[in-house]
Amino acid sequence: MFNKIALIGIGLIGSSIALAARQKNLAKNIAISTRSEKTLAEAKALNLGTSYHSDAKEAVIDADLVILCTPVGVFEIIMQQIAPNLKKGAILSDVGSVKEHVQKVITPLLPKGVDFVPAHPMAGTEYSGPKAGFPSLFEGRWCMLTPAKGVNEKAVKTLGEFWQALGSNIEIMEAKHHDLVVAITSHVPHLIAYNIVGTASELENVSKSEVIKYSAGGFRDFTRIAASDPIMWRDVFLTNRDAVLDMLGRFLGDLDELKSAVERGDGQALEELFTRTRAIRKSIIDAGQETDVVDFGRKV
Amino acid sequence: MFNKIALIGIGLIGSSIALAARQKNLAKNIAISTRSEKTLAEAKALNLGTSYHSDAKEAVIDADLVILCTPVGVFEIIMQQIAPNLKKGAILSDVGSVKEHVQKVITPLLPKGVDFVPAHPMAGTEYSGPKAGFPSLFEGRWCMLTPAKGVNEKAVKTLGEFWQALGSNIEIMEAKHHDLVVAITSHVPHLIAYNIVGTASELENVSKSEVIKYSAGGFRDFTRIAASDPIMWRDVFLTNRDAVLDMLGRFLGDLDELKSAVERGDGQALEELFTRTRAIRKSIIDAGQETDVVDFGRKV
Repeated sequence: MFNKIALIGIGLIGSSIALAARQKNLAKNIAISTRSEKTLAEAKALNLGTSYHSDAKEAVIDADLVILCTPVGVFEIIMQQIAPNLKKGAILSDVGSVKEHVQKVITPLLPKGVDFVPAHPMAGTEYSGPKAGFPSLFEGRWCMLTPAKGVNEKAVKTLGEFWQALGSNIEIMEAKHHDLVVAITSHVPHLIAYNIVGTASELENVSKSEVIKYSAGGFRDFTRIAASDPIMWRDVFLTNRDAVLDMLGRFLGDLDELKSAVERGDGQALEELFTRTRAIRKSIIDAGQETDVVDFGRKV
Repeated sequence: MFNKIALIGIGLIGSSIALAARQKNLAKNIAISTRSEKTLAEAKALNLGTSYHSDAKEAVIDADLVILCTPVGVFEIIMQQIAPNLKKGAILSDVGSVKEHVQKVITPLLPKGVDFVPAHPMAGTEYSGPKAGFPSLFEGRWCMLTPAKGVNEKAVKTLGEFWQALGSNIEIMEAKHHDLVVAITSHVPHLIAYNIVGTASELENVSKSEVIKYSAGGFRDFTRIAASDPIMWRDVFLTNRDAVLDMLGRFLGDLDELKSAVERGDGQALEELFTRTRAIRKSIIDAGQETDVVDFGRKV
């Protein structure tokens, strides 16, 4: 499909792309780049690519597809480095979880003749780093493409085919709408999970060891997403601020009402909400986005 | 271990007790009682007990151990019915998720010669009803006993042995402290999960089908606990109000700070919290209360 792909950043997503692309024979050459010598050595030991570069601007030379797989906070610096070396006719893409900010940062630095097609594979686990990657990560998951108006349609089509070859379903969406959708389906859930885990670990009247011991009553479900990569998530909240605050505001407004219902002992309001939310899970299972195994199939 | 156990209420917990008690031969007779004719017929079809009663006061006759397994909101009515028929020397227990309220409701109605030993097995799934039960539900999980001061020690010991025979670890705790512990490890997590699922399903700028489709980014983790039994959870929030509002207040205080950090773009504060919360999950896994399988082992 491509003669050469360059992956800038080789964490969970980058390494999974490398493994899946090799398995499915989508590129002759896979250049891997990361600033960290330790991570680069790990990627090499795992045999993730065909060449390894601590300097991103070397990695992108002659690449037909360049994918930024670092936290979004360093996209601007990387672009300043690689822009002069991007091949004419190359497709530039990324896997960032926010899309308006990325568009804003990349576009002014984009050389003529390079097509920028932002992408966001909605896939991931609670683990990070090159060892965390696995080739089936994207199978059956959604990958959102958010090309700006006027972007070369052939490039959009090619990148869509690449993600489909990795096993994903693709959806084309405006960057602004994408950022709202992920604010409610992903960013605010992470924020409140991080928050309650923080709250629970700093109480003076319930000990941390009690929280850990009795976590099976619900709390532990939140800890999975609160174990996600801190740098990646820091950058998400720094760059999708408006949409996150919008959705968080709605969450807090609803929570205020729910709190009032608890305060005044309004059983009917509680029962009504708790009945309504049950149906959502069934829809997610029916849509193939969730397992219906009891307790996620936990053995413990 | 007992000649006769009576289970009042036969949902997920009651049916799992019945199945486990039979498997481990803990009682010669298991009387099952529920007001709903439909549920009683289901329990009978599943062969969960040795006798079936739509009238609780019949079920408890001659029972050595009576366990209230209904939502806590009906404990008072049930006690008024069964109290005259409780056997002298019997142990009365329950499986309610709140303990101070239960103590307050049961104690004035307790006949002389009956020992009340409240219990709370910290086990459950997102499914409810007699068909949802399975005998291994309590294995390796914690069961908290909250006997009042002065309760017959032999009865406490016997009930502890019963729960250990069902596979649980037991812990004796004051009712008031229990209610605080579960407020943070279970009740507030449920409240905020119910709340965000409610928020996400009623947005005007993101459709419900988008929420369902792109739920894998974090949101779907919350839907499991927001699919729990509505009546049981309504009663939890009606009866553990003070502890829930205390812990919810702390959660909201922390969330307000976190929101401010997002508003002012304070990357350092975000990264510090997100790094700290990662460690908690590892502790829960080390304590045997969580699976370390990626994504809970989800296939989808």
